[in-house]
Amino acid sequence: MSDETPGPDPERAETEDRGDAYGLDAAQVDAILAAVEAGAQDRLLELLAPLHAADTADLLEQIGPADREKLIRLWGDGFDGEVLTELEEGVRDEVLEVLDRKTLAQAVQDMETDDLVYLVEDLEAEEQDQILQHLEDADRHAVEASLQYDEDTAGRLMSREMVICPPHWTVGDAIDFMRAHEDLPETFYKVILADARMHVVGTVALGTIMAHRRDTALRELADTSPRLIPVDQSYEDVAYAFNQYHMVSAPVVDGDGRLVGVITIDDAMEVLEDEAEEDMKLLAGVGDEEISDTVWETARARFPWLAVNLVTAIVASLVISLFEATIAAIVALAVLMPIVASMGGNAATQTLTVAVRALATRDLTRANAMRIVRREALVGAGNGIAFALIVGVVGVIWFGTPMLGVVLGVAMVINLFVAGLSGILIPMALSKLGIDPALASGTFVTTVTDVVGFFAFLGLAAALLL
Amino acid sequence: MSDETPGPDPERAETEDRGDAYGLDAAQVDAILAAVEAGAQDRLLELLAPLHAADTADLLEQIGPADREKLIRLWGDGFDGEVLTELEEGVRDEVLEVLDRKTLAQAVQDMETDDLVYLVEDLEAEEQDQILQHLEDADRHAVEASLQYDEDTAGRLMSREMVICPPHWTVGDAIDFMRAHEDLPETFYKVILADARMHVVGTVALGTIMAHRRDTALRELADTSPRLIPVDQSYEDVAYAFNQYHMVSAPVVDGDGRLVGVITIDDAMEVLEDEAEEDMKLLAGVGDEEISDTVWETARARFPWLAVNLVTAIVASLVISLFEATIAAIVALAVLMPIVASMGGNAATQTLTVAVRALATRDLTRANAMRIVRREALVGAGNGIAFALIVGVVGVIWFGTPMLGVVLGVAMVINLFVAGLSGILIPMALSKLGIDPALASGTFVTTVTDVVGFFAFLGLAAALLL
Repeated sequence: MSDETPGPDPERAETEDRGDAYGLDAAQVDAILAAVEAGAQDRLLELLAPLHAADTADLLEQIGPADREKLIRLWGDGFDGEVLTELEEGVRDEVLEVLDRKTLAQAVQDMETDDLVYLVEDLEAEEQDQILQHLEDADRHAVEASLQYDEDTAGRLMSREMVICPPHWTVGDAIDFMRAHEDLPETFYKVILADARMHVVGTVALGTIMAHRRDTALRELADTSPRLIPVDQSYEDVAYAFNQYHMVSAPVVDGDGRLVGVITIDDAMEVLEDEAEEDMKLLAGVGDEEISDTVWETARARFPWLAVNLVTAIVASLVISLFEATIAAIVALAVLMPIVASMGGNAATQTLTVAVRALATRDLTRANAMRIVRREALVGAGNGIAFALIVGVVGVIWFGTPMLGVVLGVAMVINLFVAGLSGILIPMALSKLGIDPALASGTFVTTVTDVVGFFAFLGLAAALLL
Repeated sequence: MSDETPGPDPERAETEDRGDAYGLDAAQVDAILAAVEAGAQDRLLELLAPLHAADTADLLEQIGPADREKLIRLWGDGFDGEVLTELEEGVRDEVLEVLDRKTLAQAVQDMETDDLVYLVEDLEAEEQDQILQHLEDADRHAVEASLQYDEDTAGRLMSREMVICPPHWTVGDAIDFMRAHEDLPETFYKVILADARMHVVGTVALGTIMAHRRDTALRELADTSPRLIPVDQSYEDVAYAFNQYHMVSAPVVDGDGRLVGVITIDDAMEVLEDEAEEDMKLLAGVGDEEISDTVWETARARFPWLAVNLVTAIVASLVISLFEATIAAIVALAVLMPIVASMGGNAATQTLTVAVRALATRDLTRANAMRIVRREALVGAGNGIAFALIVGVVGVIWFGTPMLGVVLGVAMVINLFVAGLSGILIPMALSKLGIDPALASGTFVTTVTDVVGFFAFLGLAAALLL
């Protein structure tokens, strides 16, 4: 950690990359906590002033609940509303409870409507009303309109603040309009050309407008077939489109093709990262937990996944119990059997992860499905044979029984082959059934490799060694 | 799948969201493959014309190598250079080999320098030269300059095409300059104010320029302390900054603080997604493999991870072998022991995944480390007790030996507690040592839970049941 004072000072960007070039510095957190502890409001405000709202939110997430409450109270009515949009849900709810109504009312008034929607959508109706009542009528209506759309759809993600021009305007008309317009969106990259019925005729990038003479017709400069986002499109599809087509902003249209809003890349970027994180956590049997969740929330959230795993572990045990007599005769089998199951589980997880990711990024499709399944089967069989030779030798050396080495080797080939096949076929099947393959694949797949691993190894042993 | 003809038709965005609203359509792939098979060049060109380069790249990745080669040859000199920047490495190398030199020369001439850098950086020196020799001098020098910077640093990610204005200019000066300038960057969102020594004085968003009168001084409109990206900053830090601070573009400066380029959000978005994907794959023991890799490449890449797992599985087996006599006396132990190990492995993976993600997103820091470690220990112990009760009862009912239930239960508490602790402490320690926690944590952690699980269960059984 560095002891340099951070903040939005251009000089600091010139210092060497130390792996913590951004974000909060431990010394800073300590100083802020000391100010909170001492009840030194001026000092606190001075320390918070240079922080970006996202960093302040991280700070609130990282300190304990008691410090959090003290900090919010000490911060008082200078509280920055943008921090609310950067907080994760659990911490945000705590902060909302601590904030006094007047501060909250002030904090929300300057927010953009898409941030407001993000802020209130998870709140209970009563809390929603408390926030909405502080807004100006236009903003409140915009937020309420967005909340009419389904969760996790473009309607919730879009902003209603946009610059729309009639298609017959010139560059000069557009510039004059923007100069005269008091309330332009905070960030916008394109002007949208729409006709009287609000149908999108095209979009013109600001850079393009800048590069042309005042008398140039906007229509001449426009991208006349921009990708339009249907207002009911899922977050996932929106993020995919932005990422795939390197989009910066896109008009959102309703079922009748009328322009209702605009989505910008920063929103899409957030969704894209969330989706990747979600898949990663689902694969590991973790829901949408956050690092700031309490012990109770975390334990409760993880319990169901462990319970499912317990069931599959018991299924595997049942398979073993079929061979109790075999194990009683040759105890070495009990020593070696976890190796086959473990290797199968790992090989399957490798295949599974690649498959889940490829499904999410739409790199695994009907066009290559058969080839990928064949590949995974061959990879499984290939590595199966390689490891069969290794463990076969290990088995012989360790226990001095050549046939035990053969059993171990053959079981390994079988299980790695099955691991490859189930690692690809199970997520594909779940995806086809409309189930998120990241959610359920892991359990199915490791159950298969445990059962097959124990059954193949102990079954072969019973047949060949007794 | 839909049989509708896709393409950049605004109408299609109005159709319902079917989960495959974007990307390639199976019918389209079939049609393209049929055209390739028939050698129908006109038909092929007609089918490829409406596709975005990213979709064409996906198509090339999804079809087999033989079809790929035929398609490229049939496409001929109309080949779209942008496709090269969208392809994953393995497929791109294949395409580069098939492309004839003249087509390649044409294809690279229109590309932006950051795309060119991305294209050539992984190529061997000889192939690099082949591409570079086709570029205009200015472009070639720009690419060669970028290649001087280390891999995976801002210098490789930035574009040298930017709009720089002297700080004393007015809005009118900037607009006149851009109108007169032939070769503006393809996309840009901000004008950079830099002094004669190329030190960044501020940035002005295009939207802000548009919104003000011609005689307004740019300096008045500027963000005078923009976050600057050091040219040697890692990809990871760059992506973090864009995501954390909702940046759209950022000036890149060298060690002397001189402006050398600009990074835009689309590049950062790609890096951000790559980082999340990389962590996800590393956790599963998969390197940077792609779905289009061959059987041999895939098997070879996965072998080392499986080999490490084999070693850890053998270590676990060695622990079991310490208790051969105990198992020989009570075979039920062999049946039940995988349950304890499996639950520990799963609980550890849950903790580990959250920890790795929190380290990557910098949500796990010195400020909250102790609290999170305590939380994970408590969660482990809590779920340990819950599952101890369940498996204890299962053990008693199944085998009718109360003491076996007690052994199973106590071993479960111990292993889930250890799973929680090792799941958080091991990635934190690796991160402190400068090792990517996603890379190595999984192996360490599951070795710990296997060893502890088997040792606790069999050791307790030896002590209490014999």
